[in-house]
Amino acid sequence: MWLLNLKPIEAASRLLSGLSPDPVDCFESFAPVNIALCKYWGKRDRDLNLPVTDSLSISLGECGSRTRVCWLPDASADEVFINGCQVEADTDFYRRVVCHIDLFRFLVPGYLRVETVNDVPTGAGLASSASGFAALTRAVAGLMGVRLEPQVMSLLARLGSGSACRSIYSGFVRWRKGVRADGMDSYAQPLSAHWPTLRVGLLTLTAEAKKTGSRQGMRRTQETSVLYNSWAEQVGQDMEKLERALAVQDFDGLGQVVEHNAMSMHATMLSSWPPLLYWLPDSVKALQRVWELREEGASVYATMDAGPNIKLLFESQTEPLVRDCFPDLQVIEPFA
Amino acid sequence: MWLLNLKPIEAASRLLSGLSPDPVDCFESFAPVNIALCKYWGKRDRDLNLPVTDSLSISLGECGSRTRVCWLPDASADEVFINGCQVEADTDFYRRVVCHIDLFRFLVPGYLRVETVNDVPTGAGLASSASGFAALTRAVAGLMGVRLEPQVMSLLARLGSGSACRSIYSGFVRWRKGVRADGMDSYAQPLSAHWPTLRVGLLTLTAEAKKTGSRQGMRRTQETSVLYNSWAEQVGQDMEKLERALAVQDFDGLGQVVEHNAMSMHATMLSSWPPLLYWLPDSVKALQRVWELREEGASVYATMDAGPNIKLLFESQTEPLVRDCFPDLQVIEPFA
Repeated sequence: MWLLNLKPIEAASRLLSGLSPDPVDCFESFAPVNIALCKYWGKRDRDLNLPVTDSLSISLGECGSRTRVCWLPDASADEVFINGCQVEADTDFYRRVVCHIDLFRFLVPGYLRVETVNDVPTGAGLASSASGFAALTRAVAGLMGVRLEPQVMSLLARLGSGSACRSIYSGFVRWRKGVRADGMDSYAQPLSAHWPTLRVGLLTLTAEAKKTGSRQGMRRTQETSVLYNSWAEQVGQDMEKLERALAVQDFDGLGQVVEHNAMSMHATMLSSWPPLLYWLPDSVKALQRVWELREEGASVYATMDAGPNIKLLFESQTEPLVRDCFPDLQVIEPFA
Repeated sequence: MWLLNLKPIEAASRLLSGLSPDPVDCFESFAPVNIALCKYWGKRDRDLNLPVTDSLSISLGECGSRTRVCWLPDASADEVFINGCQVEADTDFYRRVVCHIDLFRFLVPGYLRVETVNDVPTGAGLASSASGFAALTRAVAGLMGVRLEPQVMSLLARLGSGSACRSIYSGFVRWRKGVRADGMDSYAQPLSAHWPTLRVGLLTLTAEAKKTGSRQGMRRTQETSVLYNSWAEQVGQDMEKLERALAVQDFDGLGQVVEHNAMSMHATMLSSWPPLLYWLPDSVKALQRVWELREEGASVYATMDAGPNIKLLFESQTEPLVRDCFPDLQVIEPFA
């Protein structure tokens, strides 16, 4: 048993009340991985996943989570499978999935089988929980047979995993932190910018799950890093610069803000106590290679999330050079 | 030719005026390397090397710079040798040494030969410029035959390299930033704490000089890192904690502040643009090894300066274990 967290259930009840469910037997859904160009790091409300700052992401097209949910008529508990393996009921991950289903359960009572397939490694800082909870939200809503506006879908996904609210959309997405205590103004919205030549390269140095999860890491940073006090200030500046760069498709302007923002987030982690360092020795090696490429005139920028893996940002004309330097790179076309 | 910087010359003139020089032919002096336990990173006056914050260091006993200066009767320029090799006149290092001698030149005109031998690699973040400029200050004052109070020696050393003001003393040393525009209240003073079981381990991962010098690095951080705004706040807290830990010889209290402070300084560097990362892949490996040791119960803490090398802090009873993990470690007894 675990303590029921009532705040998300209350929030979901308000969002879903008055709807007439029309359940189906099974429902399958997809949501893309999203890579934050301006990061989300730190919560103003841990129960509702309300962030300290705005953030901005790019969704990775067809790369994401595929989630199928079905009713389990005679079961006494939910069953969760990830990439074909059943998740044990005593794990944190199982609990988070069940708690998320609980948000909808009052509409149509019963237990579910959840089967998720992720295109990226789970828990390695490759945003699998964002795409996973977004796909789960879509799938459960579909199973219950309720039609939800994208904004409501985003709000519900946020209750499962903060950054999942951005994985409801493709392309560039902005998540406004909102100011309300109940979080009803904290959801993501798609941006109109379209950038077909943009490429995102995933450099997976390890597929191992990280030792310190994002939730725990954020909390440690907020509680112990004095430098975190200035993080919100930087995000404010970076969001403005990013929106300007997107408006005029200034790639170097975009790349500089993206890398600067990511390094500053890792800086706040490093200034925590005990120090929080998600990097491997190879992360340093890859970053230094990126900086060398830039010194040689190539427009390529790095970003990193709560894990050792590196994501590269470049345009189609730079792709051959970048692939040459990083032969294992998985290149994504977000606007394909 | 280079631009004369008048502010240090004016400051030195005030400190040295009224003295009666009594020159000798040659003079040799020593100053220890100092490792900052609370770092100096950022200047409020670049000409006078006035820091934004206080700092606190430990001098490394017999490990430092030995500097011998002699008059060159018929020369038309100073000659500088470091570790037996002549330093070319068109280098930044030569200019800094000559500028420092210029501070004294009005006392007894003439050119000098400077021969310095460093116990640690030069320009690799092992504080060679601190011990070097402290030893040079002592040596030139000795050559000119002027007797200076330690406080004046510290002020003069600071004009050569900020942290050199701390290398005038052995043991624990505090440098108060001061508030005066002329810097006359910004000098180091020894602390009374004596800690014979304290050990400092130098883990030299590379002896190569760093690509971005400290002066340039500090400037980039101050000009481009939004997180730097909170650095002074952390230093204020850390100085208080350090002095309390020294007063009661609380080793874990000391070590935690030392490592937290160092990681936060590197965090401010990382949040600069372009990102300033002095680390090598092996720096990450060594840090992770230190954190593993701590998880296994060992009291050992890491600090790093503007370079990839790691300094470890531990007590004599932990020395066998630490040497076992880091066979190449050079162990210093600051109070031997």
